[in-house]
Amino acid sequence: MKLWQKNTTNTKEVEQFTIGRDPEFDIVLAPFDVLGSLAHATMLESIGLLTREELQTLKAGLKEIYQEILEGKFSIDPGVEDVHSQVEFLLTERYGDVGKKLHSGRSRNDQVAVDLKLYYRSEIREVLDAAKGLFDLLISLAEKHKGDLMPGYTHTQLAMPSSFGLWFGALAESIAEDMELWLAAYHLADRNPLGSAAGFGSSFPLNRSMTTKLLGFKEMHYNVINAQNGRGKTEKVIAFAMAGLAGTLNRLSDDIIIFMNQHFGFVKFPDNLTTGSSIMPHKKNPDVFELIRAKANQIQSGPQNLMMQMTNTSTGYHRDLQLLKETTFPDFEKLKDCLNITKFMLEHIEVKSGILQEKFYKHLFSVEVVNELVLQGMPFRDAYKKVGLDIEKDDFSPEQTVNHSHEGSIGQLCLPEIQAKMDQALAKFDFSAIDSSYEKLLNN
Amino acid sequence: MKLWQKNTTNTKEVEQFTIGRDPEFDIVLAPFDVLGSLAHATMLESIGLLTREELQTLKAGLKEIYQEILEGKFSIDPGVEDVHSQVEFLLTERYGDVGKKLHSGRSRNDQVAVDLKLYYRSEIREVLDAAKGLFDLLISLAEKHKGDLMPGYTHTQLAMPSSFGLWFGALAESIAEDMELWLAAYHLADRNPLGSAAGFGSSFPLNRSMTTKLLGFKEMHYNVINAQNGRGKTEKVIAFAMAGLAGTLNRLSDDIIIFMNQHFGFVKFPDNLTTGSSIMPHKKNPDVFELIRAKANQIQSGPQNLMMQMTNTSTGYHRDLQLLKETTFPDFEKLKDCLNITKFMLEHIEVKSGILQEKFYKHLFSVEVVNELVLQGMPFRDAYKKVGLDIEKDDFSPEQTVNHSHEGSIGQLCLPEIQAKMDQALAKFDFSAIDSSYEKLLNN
Amino acid sequence: MKLWQKNTTNTKEVEQFTIGRDPEFDIVLAPFDVLGSLAHATMLESIGLLTREELQTLKAGLKEIYQEILEGKFSIDPGVEDVHSQVEFLLTERYGDVGKKLHSGRSRNDQVAVDLKLYYRSEIREVLDAAKGLFDLLISLAEKHKGDLMPGYTHTQLAMPSSFGLWFGALAESIAEDMELWLAAYHLADRNPLGSAAGFGSSFPLNRSMTTKLLGFKEMHYNVINAQNGRGKTEKVIAFAMAGLAGTLNRLSDDIIIFMNQHFGFVKFPDNLTTGSSIMPHKKNPDVFELIRAKANQIQSGPQNLMMQMTNTSTGYHRDLQLLKETTFPDFEKLKDCLNITKFMLEHIEVKSGILQEKFYKHLFSVEVVNELVLQGMPFRDAYKKVGLDIEKDDFSPEQTVNHSHEGSIGQLCLPEIQAKMDQALAKFDFSAIDSSYEKLLNN
Amino acid sequence: MKLWQKNTTNTKEVEQFTIGRDPEFDIVLAPFDVLGSLAHATMLESIGLLTREELQTLKAGLKEIYQEILEGKFSIDPGVEDVHSQVEFLLTERYGDVGKKLHSGRSRNDQVAVDLKLYYRSEIREVLDAAKGLFDLLISLAEKHKGDLMPGYTHTQLAMPSSFGLWFGALAESIAEDMELWLAAYHLADRNPLGSAAGFGSSFPLNRSMTTKLLGFKEMHYNVINAQNGRGKTEKVIAFAMAGLAGTLNRLSDDIIIFMNQHFGFVKFPDNLTTGSSIMPHKKNPDVFELIRAKANQIQSGPQNLMMQMTNTSTGYHRDLQLLKETTFPDFEKLKDCLNITKFMLEHIEVKSGILQEKFYKHLFSVEVVNELVLQGMPFRDAYKKVGLDIEKDDFSPEQTVNHSHEGSIGQLCLPEIQAKMDQALAKFDFSAIDSSYEKLLNN
Repeated sequence: MKLWQKNTTNTKEVEQFTIGRDPEFDIVLAPFDVLGSLAHATMLESIGLLTREELQTLKAGLKEIYQEILEGKFSIDPGVEDVHSQVEFLLTERYGDVGKKLHSGRSRNDQVAVDLKLYYRSEIREVLDAAKGLFDLLISLAEKHKGDLMPGYTHTQLAMPSSFGLWFGALAESIAEDMELWLAAYHLADRNPLGSAAGFGSSFPLNRSMTTKLLGFKEMHYNVINAQNGRGKTEKVIAFAMAGLAGTLNRLSDDIIIFMNQHFGFVKFPDNLTTGSSIMPHKKNPDVFELIRAKANQIQSGPQNLMMQMTNTSTGYHRDLQLLKETTFPDFEKLKDCLNITKFMLEHIEVKSGILQEKFYKHLFSVEVVNELVLQGMPFRDAYKKVGLDIEKDDFSPEQTVNHSHEGSIGQLCLPEIQAKMDQALAKFDFSAIDSSYEKLLNN
Repeated sequence: MKLWQKNTTNTKEVEQFTIGRDPEFDIVLAPFDVLGSLAHATMLESIGLLTREELQTLKAGLKEIYQEILEGKFSIDPGVEDVHSQVEFLLTERYGDVGKKLHSGRSRNDQVAVDLKLYYRSEIREVLDAAKGLFDLLISLAEKHKGDLMPGYTHTQLAMPSSFGLWFGALAESIAEDMELWLAAYHLADRNPLGSAAGFGSSFPLNRSMTTKLLGFKEMHYNVINAQNGRGKTEKVIAFAMAGLAGTLNRLSDDIIIFMNQHFGFVKFPDNLTTGSSIMPHKKNPDVFELIRAKANQIQSGPQNLMMQMTNTSTGYHRDLQLLKETTFPDFEKLKDCLNITKFMLEHIEVKSGILQEKFYKHLFSVEVVNELVLQGMPFRDAYKKVGLDIEKDDFSPEQTVNHSHEGSIGQLCLPEIQAKMDQALAKFDFSAIDSSYEKLLNN
Repeated sequence: MKLWQKNTTNTKEVEQFTIGRDPEFDIVLAPFDVLGSLAHATMLESIGLLTREELQTLKAGLKEIYQEILEGKFSIDPGVEDVHSQVEFLLTERYGDVGKKLHSGRSRNDQVAVDLKLYYRSEIREVLDAAKGLFDLLISLAEKHKGDLMPGYTHTQLAMPSSFGLWFGALAESIAEDMELWLAAYHLADRNPLGSAAGFGSSFPLNRSMTTKLLGFKEMHYNVINAQNGRGKTEKVIAFAMAGLAGTLNRLSDDIIIFMNQHFGFVKFPDNLTTGSSIMPHKKNPDVFELIRAKANQIQSGPQNLMMQMTNTSTGYHRDLQLLKETTFPDFEKLKDCLNITKFMLEHIEVKSGILQEKFYKHLFSVEVVNELVLQGMPFRDAYKKVGLDIEKDDFSPEQTVNHSHEGSIGQLCLPEIQAKMDQALAKFDFSAIDSSYEKLLNN
Repeated sequence: MKLWQKNTTNTKEVEQFTIGRDPEFDIVLAPFDVLGSLAHATMLESIGLLTREELQTLKAGLKEIYQEILEGKFSIDPGVEDVHSQVEFLLTERYGDVGKKLHSGRSRNDQVAVDLKLYYRSEIREVLDAAKGLFDLLISLAEKHKGDLMPGYTHTQLAMPSSFGLWFGALAESIAEDMELWLAAYHLADRNPLGSAAGFGSSFPLNRSMTTKLLGFKEMHYNVINAQNGRGKTEKVIAFAMAGLAGTLNRLSDDIIIFMNQHFGFVKFPDNLTTGSSIMPHKKNPDVFELIRAKANQIQSGPQNLMMQMTNTSTGYHRDLQLLKETTFPDFEKLKDCLNITKFMLEHIEVKSGILQEKFYKHLFSVEVVNELVLQGMPFRDAYKKVGLDIEKDDFSPEQTVNHSHEGSIGQLCLPEIQAKMDQALAKFDFSAIDSSYEKLLNN
């Protein structure tokens, strides 16, 4: 039944082992497969490999399938290998041999490659939306809690005064900085591999600039071997970007879990967001943050997982590549989930105020006192010695307030600058080009 | 002897365990430590924490040490903990108490943080130089060998005609694309952490914009907690960039090792670049490429190594961070070595010509023949059937030449476009700002 | 509805995020949960916390559920958190409050811990069965092909004569040696954690030796904190064992992929086990082995994935542990699949005979000739020189046969010794104790 | 100068790149290289490839070198590739051509392989000694502090009463259980690869059983390909064993870092084992434990590092294997250092007593009270309700003592059983066979 193969069918065992979880993952590629085919068909007509009529038929057929996908009416039939076969099968079933003409000058390899690129662009956009939502909340929490002091720790030891404003602001700026890796990932995703055929090009006079433009790609992978090698590499760079953002979420959740510990008691969440027990009234388990922490670690394991599969392999398509989906696809979902639930939780965070008023924390202010004396003109050595002796004599009662004024400090959080950093980072992603390209493809 | 500590000395066991390999790594930080101190001192004077005379003394002293470093006369004395202590120790020994004033408004934590940033910027620049050298060679090899056909493989099976021009070009474009991650790494390295003190800011009215400018940083980490959290994160993103480029080197070397295998016999190197044996004349061992492949894998293990050390830790400095150097520092050397030796080897590569002329390879051209018949007007199905039957009857003698003309194919390698991609990527790194800042610091 | 919780319900968002994929994984734990409960109930009665009648009721109820599980009639109701809740819910629904008594002296934590241990023991047993099947086939293939010579490679260069007998035998012995790690994993899985409660023990006078014996455990985790810490650790050691065996499968498949390459052409598989094309008659894609190779890499990434989640966490249960299932459970399936499909494929392997007869390979025999001359009395240096000169003059026509006789060489494969190594390794796993314990639990 | 090579020398660049750090690592292999050569020479004589006189000469020469190594007089000359060449060079320099005869029937590959096995056996023994030292201390600390209660945490929340006896005991049992992986590693290290030549055996009638016995190996790798494949695999299993023990150290140090935090304040160390500050008197930085934690993470990254280098490579020696030393050798040192410094630190630990007497902890005892009521006959539900209400009314004043009696609980630590577990584990390593073999080799 498969046109391109010899007259033999794989055994059931081989069939099942090789298809694996592909149908499960491929379903999300369906709309992108149709978009890629629309662009390819348009290009084929321009170089004379399809007639104008054939193109019209194919476009009508593809748009119909696209609509079915949007309406949730599309599925991959049992026994059909993947989404690409399903689309081709539907076209041929409905419109006859013209459905097969779509395959001219294209191999399964570059069809998958282009579908993945379109899917990744779309997923990256969703990740950034979720990250932006969390970022905005963090900025507003930083503003709201800029006056709520808390201890800062070094070596997990009480060290210096800090504040919730500072802590929320740090997380916000961290997300803004995580955008750098996403830009690298996006740039790699935003390159057209179509036209690389099986990875060594084609003797048809394909117009690759044309499909690049039709699909809203900023650029192409020029070299066709490089286009093929880009599979795996694109996933790797995406995994790096995910691991970056996951690192920020890991730290955020690790901090909160500690802050919720009863010895600290710095933050709280409503009962219906934690788990507790009526006979252990002080227990409020931070299950959500423990799971964010753990999921962030799973995501941070993604790069190694992908590199293990790709390393020490030679140029050219290997079936191994199919399995990369098992890491990348679920990790996108996982990351978006984590970003969204983190935002949901932080919308309900309650911060304890007045923490540093307690005498327990007075030694945190010793550096403040030394610095103040210095600013008043006392040589540093003398100031340091005086404070040390006061403390030794237990004659140390600082005001327990802070007066930090420099950029990025408790007293000057630089939230507008951090906001600007995020805005500038996001402005480098030009998603609107994608929208207008797709619209043209689907409406012309 | 340590001013900042209590009147106790660590035991020998603890001293030795905690210092570890720091003196070995720290020596490369020496010039950057001096530069950071020059900027900090200048700023301290501007806010009144140093007098003009004190600043002059410190600047003279620091420049003197800088000169000693350049001349190889600087070393870390036994018993001195790290490079920062050594610099401070020299200043104090030579100029008295003013040496200690340099520490005002600065903690060891942000001093290390800024030194590392300056070092990373410098290393990144060297990596890019080496990568550029290899890239240029690959482009010229692609041009030189654009007519040398070779087989292309999929599933490690002979599949399609390819060429050495295509293969070299693919590696070149891959390097150009690897620059995206380096830009992300550079942007993170090019942010000033100075002024974050122990990670929670200072009560001195530091002018962080001033040191940012003096050190030629494009931007600062505004939030001081984020500046501290940037340690570890910066290394992680650098490790990603290294792993990206290492991936390209891994594939390059894996390909060459296979191409040198006697069944393939596609490329050769002079005897003095390989190892052989007089009783096994056909044996030319690709030791250099095996070691590049393996080192590329070590470098690709870097991200996981760093993330294991950083994950599940809370906000604030942890001594764990010290050990990140053991991964990042040697990996920079390893990567530069690999880039340079790869270039050295490829300068001597000999490519076999006329490979695809052999009858052994004739079936590689079956798709070419089918496509040609299609372009001449035969329906694809008929063309496919005809070629299949010809092959079955053993009546298939294609010309064994290729006529690929589209962008990025054997016949149109798009080397100028790939060159432009690399040039544009490199243009985004503004190293000249660094040079002029350092010059000012050292000459004013 | 949850007895142990406060009178609040988690929000839908939290509920969904925290349950995650647990219902999917938990279903395989169902029979083990019942077995664990049978043992716990029996013990509770022995220390007076259940009456004899209550025990009889619970045992009847649990056996009924066990039967339903075997018959595929058991499922986790929507809204029920996990398999443990489902079992308890069914018992309570059917038999009233006695169902809740089962929870005395037991926490969810050690209930899960014991279920996992029982499941792991069972899975390890299945892995070993599959490994044994593959091992036996490799031994018989080694015997069958002991006379089929092939080249041996070093540095991916033709080096020495080898044989298929030697190659199959190497893979067999490798599997036998992989059993060492499985024994370590099994020993850790075969330790009873039950009675550790939430990880800090209980004030009930539990008889842990009794449950240890009832469940057929060889030993217990004595210390209750260590029992709790064993979660995560057990999975880690299992992941090591999996990674070991996966390493052998990775090498096996990598070798076969190369041997199937047309330049080599050493092995073949029937058409219905590979994919081909009528216009590329020489192409037989080794998809199955590429996927085994890749899955083996996924499995080899398991250790890092688990360690990332567990590292830098403190003593005591963390919700993070729930997610370990997402790695361990599918990896067991993956590994068994790979072992079984490898066996299936190798049952159909066709080995080319007479490979080394070709002149192309004559230099492989140069060391043989040198050694022969030495054995005949010629000093090594002279023999080496003579052969070198003969080769240089192109006057070298060795017999192209080998005469290796030492242990483990081509001429003496030591298959009985390797078989004995495997048998001895497997004899250390005492699965029969498990069977008889379960039988007693279910029939008394 | 290299006998086995063609008449060409590698360029300086290639020489330097390929030798790498080998001289640095190889020096530790020197004594083992001599031992391996003694065994090989003895065997060669037994099969007639050396005369009795030649053997006597070689043995005398090798013992001389062995003595020089012991006395620290041995080094690898500049320009000499590795330790094996240096030994051969010395023998030939001193005794003439007989020195070269030693190479008969042996290749560099299996010479390295056997050296590594001997080295690993020796290192494993040292690791176990260090682990045993720490284990013994933990057992005695558990006994000493069995009455010192502390809180037990779940979800990083105060949960249940625990004790220092329980915590120390858990760490001890964890180490005992870590021995399982070491046994697997030792079994793989304790297999003789000698006689595998370049990985495909030899046409000389080698007696591999003889060298197996002479070197005190329990068994051999029979199959010669498997013997060669054992390189890399042995290191991998050792890395697993190291990662196991490192996991225990990671948890130990993570716990202590938290316990030293001022909010907890459960343990203390003398001033000269921590770092502090006179103006922050409460600060005692746990630098040593932070570095143990981090080094444990480096060690836990070892498996992935090694697997990245080995995966997707085919049967037969690859030069890549050389680099495995860069991971395994330093990790052995690192692990021993960590074990020793942990013991050193714990010898000075001060545990706070009476922690759970504070009212702050009273709710930890709620489960105790419920259980007590149940044991007195009250139905669980009623007991639970009563305690819940008492707590709600703030009428809850438990005794704040625990009465845990079951195996492995606070009241019955089972230290003798844990000690027995360790003793039995260690008894499986038969190091004495090694000593007596070496003695024979060196004295006959």
